Amino acid sequence: MRMVDIIEKKRNGEELTTEEIRFFVDGYTDGSIPDYQVSSLMMAIYFQDMNERERADLTMAMVESGDQIDLSGIEGIKVDKHSTGGVGDTTTLSLAAMVAAVGVPVAKMSGRGLGHTGGTIDKLESIKGFHVELSNEQFMKQVNEIGTAVIGQSGNLTPADKKLYALRDVTGTVPSIPLIASSIMSKKIAAGADAIVLDVKTGDGAFMKTYEDAKALAQAMVQIGNNVGRKTMAIISDMSQPLGFAIGNALEVKEAIDTLKGNGPKDLMELCYTLGSQMIVLGNKAKSLEEARVLLEEVVQNGKALDVFKKFITAQGGDASVVDDPSLLPQAKFQIELPAKQSGYVEKIEADDVGVAAMLLGAGRATKESTIDLAVGLVLHKKVGDSVKDGESLVTIHSNKEDIPEVIEKLYKHIIISNEPVEAPTLIKDIIKK
Amino acid sequence: MRMVDIIEKKRNGEELTTEEIRFFVDGYTDGSIPDYQVSSLMMAIYFQDMNERERADLTMAMVESGDQIDLSGIEGIKVDKHSTGGVGDTTTLSLAAMVAAVGVPVAKMSGRGLGHTGGTIDKLESIKGFHVELSNEQFMKQVNEIGTAVIGQSGNLTPADKKLYALRDVTGTVPSIPLIASSIMSKKIAAGADAIVLDVKTGDGAFMKTYEDAKALAQAMVQIGNNVGRKTMAIISDMSQPLGFAIGNALEVKEAIDTLKGNGPKDLMELCYTLGSQMIVLGNKAKSLEEARVLLEEVVQNGKALDVFKKFITAQGGDASVVDDPSLLPQAKFQIELPAKQSGYVEKIEADDVGVAAMLLGAGRATKESTIDLAVGLVLHKKVGDSVKDGESLVTIHSNKEDIPEVIEKLYKHIIISNEPVEAPTLIKDIIKK
Repeated sequence: MRMVDIIEKKRNGEELTTEEIRFFVDGYTDGSIPDYQVSSLMMAIYFQDMNERERADLTMAMVESGDQIDLSGIEGIKVDKHSTGGVGDTTTLSLAAMVAAVGVPVAKMSGRGLGHTGGTIDKLESIKGFHVELSNEQFMKQVNEIGTAVIGQSGNLTPADKKLYALRDVTGTVPSIPLIASSIMSKKIAAGADAIVLDVKTGDGAFMKTYEDAKALAQAMVQIGNNVGRKTMAIISDMSQPLGFAIGNALEVKEAIDTLKGNGPKDLMELCYTLGSQMIVLGNKAKSLEEARVLLEEVVQNGKALDVFKKFITAQGGDASVVDDPSLLPQAKFQIELPAKQSGYVEKIEADDVGVAAMLLGAGRATKESTIDLAVGLVLHKKVGDSVKDGESLVTIHSNKEDIPEVIEKLYKHIIISNEPVEAPTLIKDIIKK
Repeated sequence: MRMVDIIEKKRNGEELTTEEIRFFVDGYTDGSIPDYQVSSLMMAIYFQDMNERERADLTMAMVESGDQIDLSGIEGIKVDKHSTGGVGDTTTLSLAAMVAAVGVPVAKMSGRGLGHTGGTIDKLESIKGFHVELSNEQFMKQVNEIGTAVIGQSGNLTPADKKLYALRDVTGTVPSIPLIASSIMSKKIAAGADAIVLDVKTGDGAFMKTYEDAKALAQAMVQIGNNVGRKTMAIISDMSQPLGFAIGNALEVKEAIDTLKGNGPKDLMELCYTLGSQMIVLGNKAKSLEEARVLLEEVVQNGKALDVFKKFITAQGGDASVVDDPSLLPQAKFQIELPAKQSGYVEKIEADDVGVAAMLLGAGRATKESTIDLAVGLVLHKKVGDSVKDGESLVTIHSNKEDIPEVIEKLYKHIIISNEPVEAPTLIKDIIKK
């Protein structure tokens, strides 16, 4: 088998066989196939696409390129959740405890990540003492006992995907549905998920700017999952404005706690219930999404979800008293209000740019070497569609610097007030089951 | 400027600026842009094409990536000819002498090349003593005095093209009109041509299998040439069967001498007159192709073309007595006839496979390290459309091995005899002036 023949075949719009896909993934992983042939193939795939079978084969070839986590020591169906990422997305923290409280084990491998704020692990590290250095045995024991645990990324998972992603990033081949879908799904599958729930974001603050692209990606991932024996569902959710009110690490932990108490922002609560319902159905603890939702609302109302969260924090060395007293979380020196310059209605809160404002405060990493300031960030007081009075605070800026003209300018520029009433965007745009 | 932005721009079907094209060609040449970004861009160009302006810019960026030959020491308009390559293409040898005899200087830089037979230099080295080791001064002096000279490739011409071609070869990005056209044109321009005549072959034995592809390439090259100030014309000629009768180095030299005497194969003579007419018009020695053709026929009939050829051989150290006595050329030990197995009409002489048969005898190089046997090759006795009698010789095989079952089998397989009359293919399929 020759790589150049595989490239030419795909270039000509033909279907690659399972063996051909395996050949280039294995060859790229072991270094026998060079970058320049793989980047050319990636570009051919960008133009010629891959069919359902090829996408499933590519995913499994990447899964099998490295280690796979064995979660068989955990009882029940392990359902993982993945979000394609957005601004202020605190979902994971609340969701894991809620779903675990209903009885579906959530064994989460998480990262730190680059972006507007930290990853799930960074956020949790706002809680004094919390750590993710668990052995595999501790990790599984904790899930069996408490229902959930978070561990840092370990093992050599999907090395093919890591190499491919780094290459795609510099060769103009990132925005390709089969490549994005197989990349995401391979990581989830290698991390041991039996079933997967996907939150595909769409809008200004999302990777997929349009609904059509988000839907194509969601369908691609759901098909891959089901084709490789992992039950998978997806939603398409709005990311034209930030999710919830908080953008920042400790600020988002506080918001997650509010959500577990039933007092979270309306959109964040709705998203947790929607995704959680899918996880519970896939985890076989309810027959329908409606039935699952009732179970989730129960564990929030009766405090069981919050209780799981406390146990989870404690089990991983954290100080669970933050749950009752969030002022124990890191606090920024300055809380600066951003008064509205006119009365009217919030027309846009441009997620991406508002996220950048949070990053400028120090809430996120611009490069792998950056350090995160866990205390800083933004708390919105308004969402798109809300009415605003002149002088009313739009945002509280939590900052460790007093003088932040750049941040203020950015926020004014990207929080747009209209004189006319504005309709709030629909949060859950679609549910994709196959 | 970032390479990834250039890749994405082209991927999205946008036009690259002159500066962007220059940036990637220069960066690739000096090693600051890696193979894997360039191969991805090449694939994007394969799918998104380049417009006329981009093609001209790419050509000139490659020309200026290395040395350029200065032929200003030669009087008159230097017209170069390029053939996209085929089987038994002896044109250059006869054409240079004919055109020079009419007064258009032909200063030829030539190579050895891989393929069914050697390149122009290999063929000329069949003549005892002939060499191409001329200094630039000797080269230009010879052209001024005799009208033509052939020199080996020297200098660091179009290094960008060399790197790009090697990369395209292994990344499935060879068959792209803008890339092929700019590659060919950059080499001709860097070699100092003022004007260029192109012979784009089409058919089984050609790189461009279909007339449509050949026409697109011819038009692309003619446009590039004219857009960068080099008057350029092209023809599209048949390569479904070998050109002329001879396939092999010394055998083709003999055929070239026959052609200069006016006794060459009908198709080869016609091709020389057609291409030569374009060269003479571009060289400003005639106003029309018809007028030019009359001048060419004259120099063949009155022996001036043959005289130029003799002087050219002598000037480059060769024994010009081969012109009067071609038996002085290297002779193979065995001359084996290939009798027809049935009566009928020649339906096909599949150029590519018949060329491979010649290579099996030793007439060409399979790899750069192969040595060529100048004496061996094939002399056809029939062309497509000719009638054949059972037992009549189709081909004389000139071989230095007596036992050549593989060659014989290949020839029988690819010279196809029909019971029904067959029409001979049209040699000159089109003339492209703009």
